[in-house]
Amino acid sequence: MDIEGFRREAHAIVDWMADYLRDVGRERVVPLTEPGRTARALPPAPPAEAEGFGAIRADFDRLIFPGMTHWAHPGFFAYFPANHSPPSILAEMMIAAMGANCMSWQTSPAATELEQVVMDWLRQMVGLPAEFKGVIQDYASTSTLVAMITARDRHRDQLDRSVVYLSTEAHSSVAKGARLAGFRPDLVRLVPTDERYALSPAALREMIAADRAAGLVPAVIAATLGTTSSTGLDPVGELADIAAAEGCWLHVDAAFAGAAAIVPKLRWIMAGTERADSIVINPHKWLLVNHDCSAYFVRDPDALTRSMSTAPAYLRTRFDDTVVNYRDWGIPLGRRFRALKLWFVIRSYGVTGLQAMIREHVRLGGRFAEWVAADPDFELAAPAPVGLVCFRWKPAGRDLSGEALDRANQSLHERINAAGDLFLSHTVLGGRYTIRLALGHLSTDEALVRRVWERVRESAVGLPS
Amino acid sequence: MDIEGFRREAHAIVDWMADYLRDVGRERVVPLTEPGRTARALPPAPPAEAEGFGAIRADFDRLIFPGMTHWAHPGFFAYFPANHSPPSILAEMMIAAMGANCMSWQTSPAATELEQVVMDWLRQMVGLPAEFKGVIQDYASTSTLVAMITARDRHRDQLDRSVVYLSTEAHSSVAKGARLAGFRPDLVRLVPTDERYALSPAALREMIAADRAAGLVPAVIAATLGTTSSTGLDPVGELADIAAAEGCWLHVDAAFAGAAAIVPKLRWIMAGTERADSIVINPHKWLLVNHDCSAYFVRDPDALTRSMSTAPAYLRTRFDDTVVNYRDWGIPLGRRFRALKLWFVIRSYGVTGLQAMIREHVRLGGRFAEWVAADPDFELAAPAPVGLVCFRWKPAGRDLSGEALDRANQSLHERINAAGDLFLSHTVLGGRYTIRLALGHLSTDEALVRRVWERVRESAVGLPS
Repeated sequence: MDIEGFRREAHAIVDWMADYLRDVGRERVVPLTEPGRTARALPPAPPAEAEGFGAIRADFDRLIFPGMTHWAHPGFFAYFPANHSPPSILAEMMIAAMGANCMSWQTSPAATELEQVVMDWLRQMVGLPAEFKGVIQDYASTSTLVAMITARDRHRDQLDRSVVYLSTEAHSSVAKGARLAGFRPDLVRLVPTDERYALSPAALREMIAADRAAGLVPAVIAATLGTTSSTGLDPVGELADIAAAEGCWLHVDAAFAGAAAIVPKLRWIMAGTERADSIVINPHKWLLVNHDCSAYFVRDPDALTRSMSTAPAYLRTRFDDTVVNYRDWGIPLGRRFRALKLWFVIRSYGVTGLQAMIREHVRLGGRFAEWVAADPDFELAAPAPVGLVCFRWKPAGRDLSGEALDRANQSLHERINAAGDLFLSHTVLGGRYTIRLALGHLSTDEALVRRVWERVRESAVGLPS
Repeated sequence: MDIEGFRREAHAIVDWMADYLRDVGRERVVPLTEPGRTARALPPAPPAEAEGFGAIRADFDRLIFPGMTHWAHPGFFAYFPANHSPPSILAEMMIAAMGANCMSWQTSPAATELEQVVMDWLRQMVGLPAEFKGVIQDYASTSTLVAMITARDRHRDQLDRSVVYLSTEAHSSVAKGARLAGFRPDLVRLVPTDERYALSPAALREMIAADRAAGLVPAVIAATLGTTSSTGLDPVGELADIAAAEGCWLHVDAAFAGAAAIVPKLRWIMAGTERADSIVINPHKWLLVNHDCSAYFVRDPDALTRSMSTAPAYLRTRFDDTVVNYRDWGIPLGRRFRALKLWFVIRSYGVTGLQAMIREHVRLGGRFAEWVAADPDFELAAPAPVGLVCFRWKPAGRDLSGEALDRANQSLHERINAAGDLFLSHTVLGGRYTIRLALGHLSTDEALVRRVWERVRESAVGLPS
């Protein structure tokens, strides 16, 4: 394919992309497929000869597209959203064409400096103090692993006695990150949460006292702002007190909910994070940047670069003493030009536009929570401070509980998703099956959220079945 | 920006992209800029209000583009290439529009199965046995870190005595990966190389014997096929013997040179890798896939998933026992749909097309190496088996050596790059300043390589200065 051939095909792809964004709502969110169907339809060996792009596109339409789960579907309310937006997609196109590797300042000066600037914009937007410096990682899992490794290197000689604390509701990537960083799996402690699924400082204090008594060293406290199951908000201020007293690294996983802090009235959720050592917020979750784009902020960049830096001869440049080389701020040497996406998005929407989106999602989550709370046959399973609503069917005046109620809610969940136009995911809260509605798409509006609630109620008719 | 606005802007961006690919050769490869210039030109605070896309594009043209290093420039011969191609960019556009998160089978069945299929295609292309299973990571650094963590978990209870061996020429990410995985920095051993910059098995055997005698545990041997400085090729077969005898994990970093194995006549470079535990080859370096796309192959996927897997309630699906969930094959939970790029590229070029490209680059590297070797004022600094040529000015009949010769070669290097139409990087080999010519761009042809050689010779006139 020569360049004019590329131009022609790329224009056709643009129309496919725009049509996709316009029409994706007509597809099933999750495809009707079965394990192995796509693989079986593909040749087991690579083609020897070049094929025309028309044939490849046709196979995409025929074999791949029907097996995709559509994260861009307006009816996708599962997990956390991986939201995106037109300006972010435009940036990704330019990033792909340029193919710059932004590993060091010299390998793309403007990309490095744009990353410094837009990460500082984001810092201001969420209200972190100026001493925090930011870098874009791929995903929150990676940001958290980087935090764990940096923290570990502070306690290097005591690794076998170092303890990591996180709540039972922390994301799986937090315990995984601790394990990957080399902390002993049996010293990764899950601290109980309170009735709002927030880490209990009293329980943490008890655990730390017991660990100290046993000769262990409290090393890391990993707080979560917006747990995955229910957007529980750990009391970061209190945890910062404990971290300071115990000499622990304080990492804050605000991957989803941190974005809410750009709204002044929701800024309170970040209280205490100004005392953290490291914080992760994913613009690819709730700030309209297509993934990957995970914002990692640290108070002490020197600690980060001590753990991450390398300076082999073939990478040294005469600028190294005066510039930031982001290769030394994370795991991989190679780095795509992700800052461009964040820049396009923040400018295209403005801070007020992004605030308006988040305010609206939080308002809609609140509406849905009100409907649930007001219905005698349903219950809220957790508070819904930032647009994620966890709920269960619990019929008034019926003698259903325990596993029977779990099975009924699982049936309900399957019924809600069955038509294919909506996709909600589930979790377990307080030991019980819980359905989750995660808002976050740019297109989400009240009519759609109301339609979800109607579907939920209709689907409950005749339960248990 | 609504969807029709996106369509309009995206068509304009496509023309920008095609024009860029056509005309990038007219730009300087590395911009004339200075630290801080881009950052100073940008507002220190984010815009409150939304801005039109025209203003953003104009600022890109005015403030960002002039500060970019152009990796897509035909004159970019530095580091290793991050090559790309029209079909790969087309795939990236579709990936961005769909925004699918391919963390588990259910979150995109077709994407997961396409990744299984195309990674198996690549396995066949480089001649690995069928027991190797592949997964796409972002960069080789990450693949190597994953290997180190998996290996570490096999020696978990002996971590403080476990030793990692790599050559003095191994990529910085290998020692970094060992450190990040928690191996003791003082037990990351750099094994000397021979005159071809290949790891010396005899030296390794001696080191291992000394370590055993000191009560240490040899844990990992990290071999390199195609070192960064000079594409040195470690003797993997011999290292596999040692690894088997010592119970070591054998990791092979073939990030750049592994791609050459798709050419039957170059397949020999992979000899021995069939006995490795893990292998990394980057299609984003030399197989026309735009980054990121790092292919990681393992012999024992169970060992990998034991180290990487998590199964929290909110991620469990009813398919988990019968499908591959790639979230458990690497560090981050989130995953972009990178398999689409590899599929588009392999089909668009066919295996024969990709082989022809690599054969031609290797041939051109050989030509350049012949010109260097035949010129009495120059010397090859290392063998050039796979398209990377390391050379120095070393004038016949002149009494120049040591630091004086280094300074002269540094001057020569600066002169070659000064006009801005070419960009070669450097390294240090045998303690001496060495200029590197790394081939790999789709557009590279003999006329261009000859022009580089002419520039090198012209630039040497009047040295030292």
